[in-house]
Amino acid sequence: MSTGEHPAAVPFTTADYAARMARVVDEGRTAGLDGVLVTPGPDLVWLTGYQPTAITERLTMLLLTTDREPTLLVPTLERPDAEAAEGTPATTVADWPDGVDPYDVAQALLRPDGSYGVSDNAWAMHLLGLQAALPATRYQSLTQRLPMLRAVKDDNELARLAAAGAAADATYEEILGVPFGGRRESEVAADLADLLRAHGHEQVDFTVVGSGPNGANPHHEAGERVIEEGDCVVLDFGGLMFGYGSDTSRTVCVGEPTAEIREVHDVVRAAQQAGVDAVRPGVACQEVDRAARRLITEAGYGDRFIHRTGHGIGVTTHEPPYMIEGEEQPLVPGMCFSVEPGIYLAGRFGVRIEDIVAATADGGRRLNNTDHGLRLVE
Amino acid sequence: MSTGEHPAAVPFTTADYAARMARVVDEGRTAGLDGVLVTPGPDLVWLTGYQPTAITERLTMLLLTTDREPTLLVPTLERPDAEAAEGTPATTVADWPDGVDPYDVAQALLRPDGSYGVSDNAWAMHLLGLQAALPATRYQSLTQRLPMLRAVKDDNELARLAAAGAAADATYEEILGVPFGGRRESEVAADLADLLRAHGHEQVDFTVVGSGPNGANPHHEAGERVIEEGDCVVLDFGGLMFGYGSDTSRTVCVGEPTAEIREVHDVVRAAQQAGVDAVRPGVACQEVDRAARRLITEAGYGDRFIHRTGHGIGVTTHEPPYMIEGEEQPLVPGMCFSVEPGIYLAGRFGVRIEDIVAATADGGRRLNNTDHGLRLVE
Repeated sequence: MSTGEHPAAVPFTTADYAARMARVVDEGRTAGLDGVLVTPGPDLVWLTGYQPTAITERLTMLLLTTDREPTLLVPTLERPDAEAAEGTPATTVADWPDGVDPYDVAQALLRPDGSYGVSDNAWAMHLLGLQAALPATRYQSLTQRLPMLRAVKDDNELARLAAAGAAADATYEEILGVPFGGRRESEVAADLADLLRAHGHEQVDFTVVGSGPNGANPHHEAGERVIEEGDCVVLDFGGLMFGYGSDTSRTVCVGEPTAEIREVHDVVRAAQQAGVDAVRPGVACQEVDRAARRLITEAGYGDRFIHRTGHGIGVTTHEPPYMIEGEEQPLVPGMCFSVEPGIYLAGRFGVRIEDIVAATADGGRRLNNTDHGLRLVE
Repeated sequence: MSTGEHPAAVPFTTADYAARMARVVDEGRTAGLDGVLVTPGPDLVWLTGYQPTAITERLTMLLLTTDREPTLLVPTLERPDAEAAEGTPATTVADWPDGVDPYDVAQALLRPDGSYGVSDNAWAMHLLGLQAALPATRYQSLTQRLPMLRAVKDDNELARLAAAGAAADATYEEILGVPFGGRRESEVAADLADLLRAHGHEQVDFTVVGSGPNGANPHHEAGERVIEEGDCVVLDFGGLMFGYGSDTSRTVCVGEPTAEIREVHDVVRAAQQAGVDAVRPGVACQEVDRAARRLITEAGYGDRFIHRTGHGIGVTTHEPPYMIEGEEQPLVPGMCFSVEPGIYLAGRFGVRIEDIVAATADGGRRLNNTDHGLRLVE
């Protein structure tokens, strides 16, 4: 399949990027901000398509303020790369050469008493440089002030997320056919990575293979443990396709599962369904977490579900909105996020089931659609 | 060659890490800081050997303060990974579960009116969280306050840097034998990456192949341009070996160079030699820049040398000390950095020559030792 023919590969236009920038300024103004300062990372990719080849100590910052046109401030020697990005024509490019204080340059573009949002992952060094150059300015992270900036996806973004999800599903279908028993986790992980790439991913971000006791550590990746007959194995994998993320988990068993594994898997499966069923416009994110958690707690495993139920996904594989107790943000059609409850029995095994779900006017639409049952592998 | 037998692969011990932590606290105290806060990235790797599998929005922070033992604060679900790191036994591990405010946990470990250094690349979101939780605390980036923390390498670190440099040199010797003319830059770049790995690098960070006009953009990586007969080609490549960086540049010519290419190359070569010759203990970093820049300026190309002369190298390939006008830090034996002047003729070609140099009591010791002449390739 050539990228050019795939329906998800419709390019974003300069106008798309300009519209996103305008929306950021507007939402910032509504939130009481004089502007939003965006450094390299997912926010900058979403707003300009620009991703410096390396994130260095040199300040690169997109300034989206209420009092001037969008300005992209870059180190002089990175200017050609910045100008080549799809969305850069929607900005005025300014540069600063080595030897010049970049905060001096930036402060001339800001209000001395302004209130600004700043990318979550902006370097503390840069924030401190701005705070020192303009002591009366105030800052809040985008997650604090405009957490839902990238949360609602447009149709082009949804198509890319659906394509990434379908590729992850095809990967799962094929991994069921590879041998597990007697091979190292890292070998199965390499198979997952190869399959994700074969199905169109340009980037693989994680390929968790948590066998037996390793499955009880929710952030175990894949190690040198040799998978054994009878092992419960958590698979959790994803990456980027057309710049948008995939992330799905299934738990399989090597040969016949014990009654306990079946029971735990049934609980997680029901909890995951309950989480998806809770998705409706206007429902608070925390209700998705509560719906999934309730079933696990009622089954007596409440203290073994040691993470939130889900996270948003887009140009990154972890972003707002989070499905977590305390998150009162109402769901809006176009939001995409994981629903991924799990149960972890330390030293023994773990079970997690995860789909990406898009909120629609009618409820949750799964972007992962493989069998949720406990599949047996060899 | 097995890693275990390589002299550069002597493992760091828990005591090594504990000593680094103690040094950070001491140097911080001398600089007027109540402590240093270290988030994931090179500082944390250097201090603990810990590198989370993914840097996420969740707060991970090593607190090195004057009033308590080193404490590593991590998300609960990443605790097992954190505990597996080599240097973690030198800390007390504390964790915070999803749903708890990590800044509440951190603030209990800090002085309400404390002054702290913070990793350059700490997320602005985390810094703002701490500033909000403890409004009377003050922060400065490590580059502002303790820029030379990792700059002076010990013998084990120097051995690793030398091994990385030797592997990069072997890569250069072999790349001279591959065909350039008629191939894409990206193909030669792939050869460089393969060679770095074959010579022991565990990570390749950059493989610049800047042919013809692309060589005039100092941050061009490698593209789809087909290299032509007569092209001047800038090669700049490196990565990590045993956790420490390599970074070397040479400029080659495909067939016979023009008189102008030879002249420009001679100027850059002499400038690079002058930069290395300037290295002596007690000499300010800016003098290395000035020494190299003087020759280029005298030759009439001053405005075509559009970047600083060098950067430190260690667990990262760009770190203090910087060889740049205004940097008055005196050189200290054990500091390692690049000396890499260049001349860039926009739209036509560029030349850059770069070695990693270690400051010793006797002057500069090159860790790259391949021919500095203009080598011809096919």
